[in-house]
Amino acid sequence: MKIVIVGATGTMGKHLASAFEKDHEIVRVGKESGDILADITSTESIENLFKQIGSFDALISTAGPTYVGPWKNMTDKEFRKGIEGKLMGQVNLVLIGQHYINPKGSFTLITGALTHEPVLNFANASAANGAVEAFVRAAAIELENGVRINAVSPTVIEDSPQYFPYFHGDIPVTMKQLEYGFRKSVFGANTGQVIKPY
Amino acid sequence: MKIVIVGATGTMGKHLASAFEKDHEIVRVGKESGDILADITSTESIENLFKQIGSFDALISTAGPTYVGPWKNMTDKEFRKGIEGKLMGQVNLVLIGQHYINPKGSFTLITGALTHEPVLNFANASAANGAVEAFVRAAAIELENGVRINAVSPTVIEDSPQYFPYFHGDIPVTMKQLEYGFRKSVFGANTGQVIKPY
Repeated sequence: MKIVIVGATGTMGKHLASAFEKDHEIVRVGKESGDILADITSTESIENLFKQIGSFDALISTAGPTYVGPWKNMTDKEFRKGIEGKLMGQVNLVLIGQHYINPKGSFTLITGALTHEPVLNFANASAANGAVEAFVRAAAIELENGVRINAVSPTVIEDSPQYFPYFHGDIPVTMKQLEYGFRKSVFGANTGQVIKPY
Repeated sequence: MKIVIVGATGTMGKHLASAFEKDHEIVRVGKESGDILADITSTESIENLFKQIGSFDALISTAGPTYVGPWKNMTDKEFRKGIEGKLMGQVNLVLIGQHYINPKGSFTLITGALTHEPVLNFANASAANGAVEAFVRAAAIELENGVRINAVSPTVIEDSPQYFPYFHGDIPVTMKQLEYGFRKSVFGANTGQVIKPY
């Protein structure tokens, strides 16, 4: 299977690329390093990305920039970070990528428990997650040729301890659990699901 | 109570303004008509709006422009209608309005069942709704001085029969049910809730 991983140089993407590369062809996409460079906040960059990749069987996105910081400092400007990044970045990967993906291919986007369990300083991520999860359900009934779409929604992840202080009482999702969430989406048959890997 | 209704000239806003005006001071806000004109896709217009209103006790938003149309025609451009309108428009009413609202005041935003029950042609509204609902939960733990925030999430509404053909099997929410949803948010004590008025 030819699997595109967008965010391949991040904490999650690195783990997934390494886990799947034994059995699959992996295309690592990053903003600053990787097999192909792309900036998901630019539709032109996404178009160029898919033109370089050609057809593929699965796209995994672990790319979700959002604004993290005090509510009192949050204005439209800060909020746009998650809107352009985690939200429209991922939506555009699907809207554009659907024209390049093979029949019965799959898109797997990243969200997070913040959709339903907010924590202080992360309202922007909550909103982006909520949008992407609802988009996944809606896109699942629109996509053709057997193409599937799901979201993987972890809590704080094991290999990002810098976020632990914000997520009181959240048991970190291990990298293995996270990987299993993506396995369920990429290699399973579900569509329109928000997969909680815990 | 001084209640600001944004979208006051629309189907929902008109009903709510008329239902609440007997017992409360209503400020009708519309894009093209109303007591005060405002375009919620512009932060400058929202700032001007609140400067004109001064302090208030409750803000109701029924303003939710989104793109409705075939998935195959949807690109970043069409998707922005809901992002700028129903999503950022409502988010900015809160981010800016929080500096003008009275202690123990409330924000009530509009979403819809499309968050969890997508229908064809409405993926943009699904995403906007999902974002606003998650934002409401996140904002509820951030807002200070006892200020509350909720969303009202109807299915298709009785007085918008032009949408009935899209919502197969959805029993339309009556205008009275919708009104009760907003009553629960504005006059009740809940916060961070998605109120389903059916």
